[in-house]
Amino acid sequence: MALPKKVRLVEVGPRDGLQNEKAVLSVDNKVTLVELLAKSGLSYIEAGSFVSPKWVPQMANSNEVFDKIERQPHTTYTALTPNMKGLEAALESGVDEVAIFGSASESFSQKNINCSIDESLARFDDVTRAALEKGMKVRGYVSCVMGCPYEGQIAPQAVLNVSRKLLDMGCYEVSLGDTIGVGTPYHTKQLLEVITPHIDANAIGVHFHDTYGQALANIYAALEFGIASIDSAIAGLGGCPYAKGASGNVASEDVLYMLDGMGIETGVDMQGLLRASHYITKVIGRPPMSKVANALMVKNP
Amino acid sequence: MALPKKVRLVEVGPRDGLQNEKAVLSVDNKVTLVELLAKSGLSYIEAGSFVSPKWVPQMANSNEVFDKIERQPHTTYTALTPNMKGLEAALESGVDEVAIFGSASESFSQKNINCSIDESLARFDDVTRAALEKGMKVRGYVSCVMGCPYEGQIAPQAVLNVSRKLLDMGCYEVSLGDTIGVGTPYHTKQLLEVITPHIDANAIGVHFHDTYGQALANIYAALEFGIASIDSAIAGLGGCPYAKGASGNVASEDVLYMLDGMGIETGVDMQGLLRASHYITKVIGRPPMSKVANALMVKNP
Repeated sequence: MALPKKVRLVEVGPRDGLQNEKAVLSVDNKVTLVELLAKSGLSYIEAGSFVSPKWVPQMANSNEVFDKIERQPHTTYTALTPNMKGLEAALESGVDEVAIFGSASESFSQKNINCSIDESLARFDDVTRAALEKGMKVRGYVSCVMGCPYEGQIAPQAVLNVSRKLLDMGCYEVSLGDTIGVGTPYHTKQLLEVITPHIDANAIGVHFHDTYGQALANIYAALEFGIASIDSAIAGLGGCPYAKGASGNVASEDVLYMLDGMGIETGVDMQGLLRASHYITKVIGRPPMSKVANALMVKNP
Repeated sequence: MALPKKVRLVEVGPRDGLQNEKAVLSVDNKVTLVELLAKSGLSYIEAGSFVSPKWVPQMANSNEVFDKIERQPHTTYTALTPNMKGLEAALESGVDEVAIFGSASESFSQKNINCSIDESLARFDDVTRAALEKGMKVRGYVSCVMGCPYEGQIAPQAVLNVSRKLLDMGCYEVSLGDTIGVGTPYHTKQLLEVITPHIDANAIGVHFHDTYGQALANIYAALEFGIASIDSAIAGLGGCPYAKGASGNVASEDVLYMLDGMGIETGVDMQGLLRASHYITKVIGRPPMSKVANALMVKNP
């Protein structure tokens, strides 16, 4: 299959990244980060999450972040809304699009959101219906697509089942997440060989964590299936809650370097990403988990 | 093309890795490292270099290292021998196999070994002839196959030319090196599409540096061409002399994780590699440049 000519980078640093960082950022820090990311040309930024601050204190001020961002016309600003209460808050904050977060692993669903996969899907159905009624698009995440911290291996068929249900309820795309970063290109191929006969590649995104350094190889394997929507986080924000000290989301800079080098269009400017990377790593006080950022910042400090 | 079922991991940490590290290691440290690597099951370890200590002080004690290593029967212990003097010293030290180091870039050849590509090939021809006469196999490196720190892009045809000459003079394999780590899977494909119609995949190895995080994606692209000889360095030793602070050779642990996950046989044991990684990073006083080592050592300290 021919590689895609154009890829949409989905920037999840301000949400999936920061919610797994120790540091709790101020509203102003988050606003600056999101604005720098948008200025780099990113067309899609998940800027926050409307979820109980009891569960995710790092996201408590998402409404203020959305209020303060100076928006770019080319960028869609989105938020995770796990339930109706979250959706209502997101609507009040003028979020452009929302996302829901399902799982392919029964145990992960229980431990992460305290209900079964089916119960979660019923809840998401309400959220999706209400969002669509308001004219908002909904993106669906599927977590643990290549392994679960509690169950180990996850069958591709389980991923397909949840994905179809999310698309059937009205999501325009499912983002398949290797939440614990265990997959290799073999697993990516195996998964997409099961999924793509049933779901068009245009309705599939991939979301890799780089815990074992496999993310770019997996993304390359996914590109070979025509996948053209890729999640990443600036500076590789996020860490790994299951192996402290290990890497988090694949770094946006590293993904962009690969896509640029392959002549695949993204509309994103590397220098712009590096400014955002430099900013956020100074704020959280550690070097970027991006080889590209480390190599290029050393050259152009 | 089907992926290979079996891959030979060529461990270059003790040579290509350590020669680019600041720390100058003692003979005993190097011996311990090489012995730990061999115990992990590695069948091929480049354990040193017989080169003027004026140019590469880190390799000055290679003869003592070879004298002291307690050898494993399954492992081939090799050394880089850039000239006849080096080869003679290597023969005295009972090296199993030798390697020569050519370049696809004229400027890199001039700056690195102070002579043109053709002059270097004439010198290597003498070394190869003499080594073969003694019954030793010779491996040929080609550096700068995807870019040169002085010239920028390098034409795949230039890589093919040097590779053919090295094979014609008697090398059994050429290791194609992205010395500055700039290539992406696009470049890997482009290069191997030019090379493989003329050189059998069995006579090709790949040698990626991970400066921009692209190494595993490139290795996956190479596996798709049937390449089954992969260079890597324990703990990602080596750094990058052209961008201080940036990554060096791709980490052996990360390559093994990918191959294990893909069901490709190597004969190498991850726990054994982690022991070597843990040892050498303690000696040089910095954490491993391997995501796998960082993730797994955190789990099993």
